[in-house]
Amino acid sequence: MIQHVPSLEKLTHELAKLPGIGPKTAQRLAYFVLRSSQEYVDSLRQALQMVKDNIHECPECYSYTEEDELCRFCQDPHRENGVLVVVEDPADISRIESSGVFKGRYHVLHGAISPLDGIAPQDLKIPQLLHKIQSGLEGARPKITEVILALDADLEGDTTVLYLAKALREKGLQVSRIAHGVPIGGDIDYIDHRTLGRALENRVVL
Amino acid sequence: MIQHVPSLEKLTHELAKLPGIGPKTAQRLAYFVLRSSQEYVDSLRQALQMVKDNIHECPECYSYTEEDELCRFCQDPHRENGVLVVVEDPADISRIESSGVFKGRYHVLHGAISPLDGIAPQDLKIPQLLHKIQSGLEGARPKITEVILALDADLEGDTTVLYLAKALREKGLQVSRIAHGVPIGGDIDYIDHRTLGRALENRVVL
Repeated sequence: MIQHVPSLEKLTHELAKLPGIGPKTAQRLAYFVLRSSQEYVDSLRQALQMVKDNIHECPECYSYTEEDELCRFCQDPHRENGVLVVVEDPADISRIESSGVFKGRYHVLHGAISPLDGIAPQDLKIPQLLHKIQSGLEGARPKITEVILALDADLEGDTTVLYLAKALREKGLQVSRIAHGVPIGGDIDYIDHRTLGRALENRVVL
Repeated sequence: MIQHVPSLEKLTHELAKLPGIGPKTAQRLAYFVLRSSQEYVDSLRQALQMVKDNIHECPECYSYTEEDELCRFCQDPHRENGVLVVVEDPADISRIESSGVFKGRYHVLHGAISPLDGIAPQDLKIPQLLHKIQSGLEGARPKITEVILALDADLEGDTTVLYLAKALREKGLQVSRIAHGVPIGGDIDYIDHRTLGRALENRVVL
């Protein structure tokens, strides 16, 4: 589509590799970059390299961090050691943090079990989760007594919840899943029937 | 939203400056970059700088080019000099080229007249267009006898068409605008009434 300007074609091609960016959007972005200031291109290029250079996985919870070793949540001595929230992605942690409700520890699975995509428990940070819990039970580290599964409400999330609930209950832990229901401010007219069904099943006695 | 990882926050911030990329999309892209290979980040960074380093405006038609001076269309001795297609953006040229119908020259306005946004004719490459045509009439360069306006079918495009049609007709040129109508393969059921009105007005006698 681009009129034979190789640099624009190359940038369009590279941008189109980003998720959710089709060739038309990539072309629009490439033209924007062409017209934008050298300062902007410099900061964008620097920012791209910085995430590669500065960020590593926390060896404790497998979230992303720029701290020397452990992430700020794993370092924090004021957080409760006995409760663990399990999430699929590092970005989920910030969503939970902004709720302000939870003050325990985290564990990031980096995905969910999906037999259709060939993603088995050992492809995720599930062995590390079970090992962490086992070490706690054996006294080698602070004991975890409760695990809250904050996984997506889709097929893969459900599969992972079933798998983990079984494995963790066998170890004698209390396992729960975050509630599904009508979102705050949500209008019942616009809620799908599966969510409404869950909201009815999980009704809270007043 | 990002869990206090400054490099991810910075990249999200820079990506969110791109047109059509909101904070949520920017965050998803930043995580993608973090997880992608160093090779990909290298080629993306290189491509970003290349468009800034290699591309300049063609001094003849104001399109973008990597050629030494004139773009490939202005260089081409086999293209007709007498007919000029006027477009708003450089990317429009490639769309017209892929139609295979036009073999003349181009002129890029870099926008359209928009009094609401404070964009006047002199903010665009309109003085350069009129000067180019005047030079042709005076024999200082190949004469342009016909101008085809391939501008957007919106308010700004319409305003620009009115302005240019008046200015160019005064110079004795044949001025036309590309046809509006039902797209090829388009179903009349799904065409808006304004397009259909234009298609009726501009009906072609068989």
